Amino acid sequence: MVAKCAIVLLSGGLDSATVLAIARSQNYECYALSVDYGQRHRAELDAARRIAAALSAHEHRTMRVDLAGIGGSALTDAEMPVPQALAPGIPVTYVPARNTLFLSLALGWAEVIGTGDIFVGVNAVDYSGYPDCRPAFIQAFEQLARVATKAGVEGGRFQIHAPLIQMSKADIIRAGVRLGVNFGATVSCYQATAEGRACANCDSCRLRAAGFAAAKIPDPTAYA
Amino acid sequence: MVAKCAIVLLSGGLDSATVLAIARSQNYECYALSVDYGQRHRAELDAARRIAAALSAHEHRTMRVDLAGIGGSALTDAEMPVPQALAPGIPVTYVPARNTLFLSLALGWAEVIGTGDIFVGVNAVDYSGYPDCRPAFIQAFEQLARVATKAGVEGGRFQIHAPLIQMSKADIIRAGVRLGVNFGATVSCYQATAEGRACANCDSCRLRAAGFAAAKIPDPTAYA
Repeated sequence: MVAKCAIVLLSGGLDSATVLAIARSQNYECYALSVDYGQRHRAELDAARRIAAALSAHEHRTMRVDLAGIGGSALTDAEMPVPQALAPGIPVTYVPARNTLFLSLALGWAEVIGTGDIFVGVNAVDYSGYPDCRPAFIQAFEQLARVATKAGVEGGRFQIHAPLIQMSKADIIRAGVRLGVNFGATVSCYQATAEGRACANCDSCRLRAAGFAAAKIPDPTAYA
Repeated sequence: MVAKCAIVLLSGGLDSATVLAIARSQNYECYALSVDYGQRHRAELDAARRIAAALSAHEHRTMRVDLAGIGGSALTDAEMPVPQALAPGIPVTYVPARNTLFLSLALGWAEVIGTGDIFVGVNAVDYSGYPDCRPAFIQAFEQLARVATKAGVEGGRFQIHAPLIQMSKADIIRAGVRLGVNFGATVSCYQATAEGRACANCDSCRLRAAGFAAAKIPDPTAYA
């Protein structure tokens, strides 16, 4: 029997680790893809490597894209500080067109290995309000994939799986624990230390800590 | 008066040079974007720099993306030869999801500089049959841009300008000459030498030579 294959976008954070575990539980042979885009929280790339190995990804690649050159985000511009509290509106940690870019890279790799299944850990409930985490975005990208690719034109199917999109952070954590994800190995913090220790104050840290509290699961995060 | 700004994807070939000239003729301040994706015809990146300067682009950036790692195309895989003749179907020079990726990078930069105008030199007449050169692809990407970005969510307009999409190669060449493009500085060949000399045999060389012949304009291409 030929295995089902899927590309899984793996940032090294809590959400994408859970998505990889979900894809594995559905018997996909997983090609995990991380992107080194000049993010300040580079410890997440080390975390991605550990998670890919722990969850038996078939392969793990880190692709380099130089987004720091265009700036425009607190995550890629060293001069722009990471906010220390949640605020209304789309925050300055938004990286312009990031998920469009990540899915483009995933789409290219999917064509090469011959699969139409791509998993991504976007979430539109306990999130920072990024536009490219919403169902409308996922649907628009699926539509694009069908007309953009040789595989799509030749009748291939493309599906962007976003299993977390309507889940609360607490539900994501519960699902991950059930599937054996070691959340202690994940890094969510936007300004993690080189060793992956979290700041406890950024958007991402606050959403994560609130999720563990709501799920009534001990928080394994290493704080700085 | 604030200038109109646009991102212009600039490969260094004949088509994108003409697009840059068209955008300039429409009074756009142009931010030219080239992508170093590990293509074998690296001479086109040098050509892009010369063209950006000659046509007074406001700025020119070359972003690096490592596509050679995923392979799957004769343009990025050194082991896969470039075909020496046109053949039916989508050829092996197709780079999986290339224009999706290029437009994603353009979209990110567009958000940062605050414009919704992106120019791209795709053409669906005298072309190699790539799926991501067709009107359906351009429309799907425009739709995606509106839901994918902070600017789109906040009511901003995104337009992917593809002024060449229904033009013959001869018409493109005539338009470029009218606008002062020095086609001798452009590189179209998929396996150009380091100095930019063309092979005369690949798809891209054949389409280009036929275009100059049909336009009855002397072909300034330097052949190896």
